[in-house]
Amino acid sequence: MTEISEQLLAGDRRILSRVISQLERGAPEAAQVLKAIDHHTGGAYTVGITGPPGAGKSTMVDRLTQLLRQEGLKVGIIGVDPTSPFTGGAILGDRIRMQRHYLDDGVFIRSVATRGHTGGVPRIVKGMVRLLDAWGTDVVLVETVGVGQSELGIMEVADTVLVTMMPESGDAIQTLKAGIMEIADIYVVNKSDRDGADQMAAAIRANLGLDSSHRDWDPPILKTQALSGEGMEALWSKVQEHRDYLASSAKLVELRAQRRKQEFLEAVEEEVGRRLKALVEGDPTLIAMLEKVAGKEAEPFSSAIDFLAKFNGPTGLLGSLFTKED
Amino acid sequence: MTEISEQLLAGDRRILSRVISQLERGAPEAAQVLKAIDHHTGGAYTVGITGPPGAGKSTMVDRLTQLLRQEGLKVGIIGVDPTSPFTGGAILGDRIRMQRHYLDDGVFIRSVATRGHTGGVPRIVKGMVRLLDAWGTDVVLVETVGVGQSELGIMEVADTVLVTMMPESGDAIQTLKAGIMEIADIYVVNKSDRDGADQMAAAIRANLGLDSSHRDWDPPILKTQALSGEGMEALWSKVQEHRDYLASSAKLVELRAQRRKQEFLEAVEEEVGRRLKALVEGDPTLIAMLEKVAGKEAEPFSSAIDFLAKFNGPTGLLGSLFTKED
Repeated sequence: MTEISEQLLAGDRRILSRVISQLERGAPEAAQVLKAIDHHTGGAYTVGITGPPGAGKSTMVDRLTQLLRQEGLKVGIIGVDPTSPFTGGAILGDRIRMQRHYLDDGVFIRSVATRGHTGGVPRIVKGMVRLLDAWGTDVVLVETVGVGQSELGIMEVADTVLVTMMPESGDAIQTLKAGIMEIADIYVVNKSDRDGADQMAAAIRANLGLDSSHRDWDPPILKTQALSGEGMEALWSKVQEHRDYLASSAKLVELRAQRRKQEFLEAVEEEVGRRLKALVEGDPTLIAMLEKVAGKEAEPFSSAIDFLAKFNGPTGLLGSLFTKED
Repeated sequence: MTEISEQLLAGDRRILSRVISQLERGAPEAAQVLKAIDHHTGGAYTVGITGPPGAGKSTMVDRLTQLLRQEGLKVGIIGVDPTSPFTGGAILGDRIRMQRHYLDDGVFIRSVATRGHTGGVPRIVKGMVRLLDAWGTDVVLVETVGVGQSELGIMEVADTVLVTMMPESGDAIQTLKAGIMEIADIYVVNKSDRDGADQMAAAIRANLGLDSSHRDWDPPILKTQALSGEGMEALWSKVQEHRDYLASSAKLVELRAQRRKQEFLEAVEEEVGRRLKALVEGDPTLIAMLEKVAGKEAEPFSSAIDFLAKFNGPTGLLGSLFTKED
């Protein structure tokens, strides 16, 4: 156990912040801390909040945080933001509302950008959750933006997934179609004071009805007005009910074990990709090959296959992908 | 030049369909065809159509196809669909309208699912565009669904990117924020007979105004009603104008060269991932390691780093990732 790990487990906020930054950079120190604290994790419960833009997800996170703080619970908030391909930075958007929680010692907030064009939830969020867990967090709220494929990754991070919709969303049916609905443990029709809240709930119900036979947990549909706070306590009760369901059926253990495997495999793939990129910048053979591909002297896909076959073994170019870096 | 490649270049529709399926499966035959036809490509122009759900993208593709067919041009249509994590299949949704084009010999339509949780535009779409090109396609239309990060990949496929919005979209501002707007070569306010079309155009204009100094091409904002066909000819003229701009400034050559490099690198990464997954299913050492990770005997991230360092070289486990498969 390193000093840093001990400080983290003792609840040192600055240390938490520093290790998360190391994790984001892919620094080896972060891997060491994650290893040291691993046995001290598992206490934090992770709730994912997703849904189309404008559904009020940030307000919901804000209200849930308030509620949890009133119960004396320590809260971690991870906002997964789309990244502009040009600016490279995370867009905080509606999170300005969250600022009051920044002053609260019992709340830790961090934004993570979805890098590249992969969308989804970055792998490092899983490590962040464990670091928050070690720090003493009771509940981690993970908010993701988007419709379509990009937020399916929330299933691989959150124990309970809330899918938030709003009544007048003309996109509702499209969202239903897109399969995002299937990931919900709890549906939330937010802004339920607006017209069409009941129709929305009915549409969700109808969609659910199609194929519920295989489910042990029947996802409830709740109506909330996060802005005024209405329905938020009922929502939190439902989350606890779902948690109890997972815990009693041993599904929580199973779910988390599966996720750990997934994270290992993702980390291997990502690391291979990262080392490949480093190679590209430094290796003259690969640079020459890329120029041939660019100049139509070589075709991209078949060249990739040839490349993998050719540069093989520890003395070859790709052997260096798998030697430890300093 | 193989017989298959010759048949493809001669415009054989069944061969095109077969090779695309091989590409989707990752079959080595597809790589050989891509290699053989590479020098015969470059004639097709690729237009990407993206924007939030409900903006009328499919109707727009339908109308553009009609217009291009009237000019006697051969059209390829690639629909990139989100995939349900449960069904695994592509959702055709609004593409039913497209069915009349299925009977037209000068049109080739294909849906591609975004697999896994990566979202975005699958790498194979780039190969599909070249196969369509070799088949004699004049214009390839690529439609992607989603907001947020998932459609940024369209930039890596399309020569001209259309971002389609609709007037009353409450999500407009969120979309502007999310950076998707920055990828547009042409903005389209579709369903412009509805209230708020001018406000929408003004909002886009205001957003653009923030940072236009670095641009040679100032993205125009067009209003259309794809359903009635209004504004579609003007839209197509604008696409041609953008194409001429790219061609005259040598940007088109540059853009496509960059994309080929990118595709090569993506193919290498994907292939490594694919081979890793195959290993996971068959190798007892790796299976044992995964079980340790799942059972909290080993931490996922640090184990991945150790794994890469340990199983090295041609005799090691990962050496086999880089030997040619049969």
